[in-house]
Amino acid sequence: MSITITAFEHSPDRGGGHARDMRVRWALEEVGQPYDVRLVSFKTMKQPAHLALHPFGQIPTYQDGDLALFETGSIVFHIAECHRGLLPDEANARARAITWMFAALNTVEPPIVEREQARYVVGDKAWYSELLSILDDRVRARLAQLSRWLGDAEWLDGSFSAGDLLMVTVLRRLDGSGLVEEFPNVAAYIARGEARPAYRRAFDAQLAVFKAASAG
Amino acid sequence: MSITITAFEHSPDRGGGHARDMRVRWALEEVGQPYDVRLVSFKTMKQPAHLALHPFGQIPTYQDGDLALFETGSIVFHIAECHRGLLPDEANARARAITWMFAALNTVEPPIVEREQARYVVGDKAWYSELLSILDDRVRARLAQLSRWLGDAEWLDGSFSAGDLLMVTVLRRLDGSGLVEEFPNVAAYIARGEARPAYRRAFDAQLAVFKAASAG
Repeated sequence: MSITITAFEHSPDRGGGHARDMRVRWALEEVGQPYDVRLVSFKTMKQPAHLALHPFGQIPTYQDGDLALFETGSIVFHIAECHRGLLPDEANARARAITWMFAALNTVEPPIVEREQARYVVGDKAWYSELLSILDDRVRARLAQLSRWLGDAEWLDGSFSAGDLLMVTVLRRLDGSGLVEEFPNVAAYIARGEARPAYRRAFDAQLAVFKAASAG
Repeated sequence: MSITITAFEHSPDRGGGHARDMRVRWALEEVGQPYDVRLVSFKTMKQPAHLALHPFGQIPTYQDGDLALFETGSIVFHIAECHRGLLPDEANARARAITWMFAALNTVEPPIVEREQARYVVGDKAWYSELLSILDDRVRARLAQLSRWLGDAEWLDGSFSAGDLLMVTVLRRLDGSGLVEEFPNVAAYIARGEARPAYRRAFDAQLAVFKAASAG
């Protein structure tokens, strides 16, 4: 069997590695699993064949033989369950690492996405800057809590885990906002994630797609 | 060992079962596990002892012997892994049910929370109604996708699972918005969840806390 994931044919992040296929690519690189990528257009993503794979019409999807999954949290967890390297063996440490996966996606990511979306959706309104300042403060509150938890630790709970992988990719969405820079230990945490060889391989792979699409 | 969860001493939902301890209570009722509840005030939630259990200062937390968890997704998953009844045995069906857990929390819940938050945070602004209409449409888009996926099915993927449990609790947050009523099969899906005996027991337990607090 071989793994196939989907990714944007033309990623709106211009190869910045912010699209969610980056999370799955990174997880597969951490565990040393090869994978194929099927590129999809925005139009394809809204058609019945893709919606059968992903009811919310997004990327990435994950296919391996009979199994088809969507949601990066679920895909990364599946990879972590099938291969060593992304979750601790000890039961309690494993449960805590899974907690950080959910914390990244359900507590930290939503205010970050909201801040990002606002520009696209209401960026032309007279009240956008007033709203943005409120959304910035919500993100700051989460970053402050995360910074306090992290302290001088290298990763969120012991060794690097799928929880860190998701948290780092979530936090990277703040690139250019200036918010992370207010919390130096969080900035250093993101940098540690980005320095991992598996991260670099995943980043280069998605950048190559963008470069090829731009040249084409 | 015995399970202890935390819940609001004075729930802002006035016993409506919208606070997140409801998810954990329901999961524990589905698998037939008894549990203790420790009630916490808003002040307690922001103090170091609680932040050591929950870095983001929220409820619920989950303690069982040496293990301490936060994040409802993680707690429900832990309960599902330790007991039968919330995840299918077959590997692919299990992975798909876990996908729906993440979909409930990372794709469906964020726009619902955002809509809810807006009232508290910017409800007094002149532009609130303009923003609300945009946030309503974002929720509608997710409900339409969910409705199309669900069709005439009873649950999201085969038998009732932890994915349905989380999705139903997430969708219940729209009570009073009038949005769910636009999608009758989604409304019927929520009603099926609420009709489960385990749901009723969990709901009654959290309502009893509210009534006792109000009488006190």
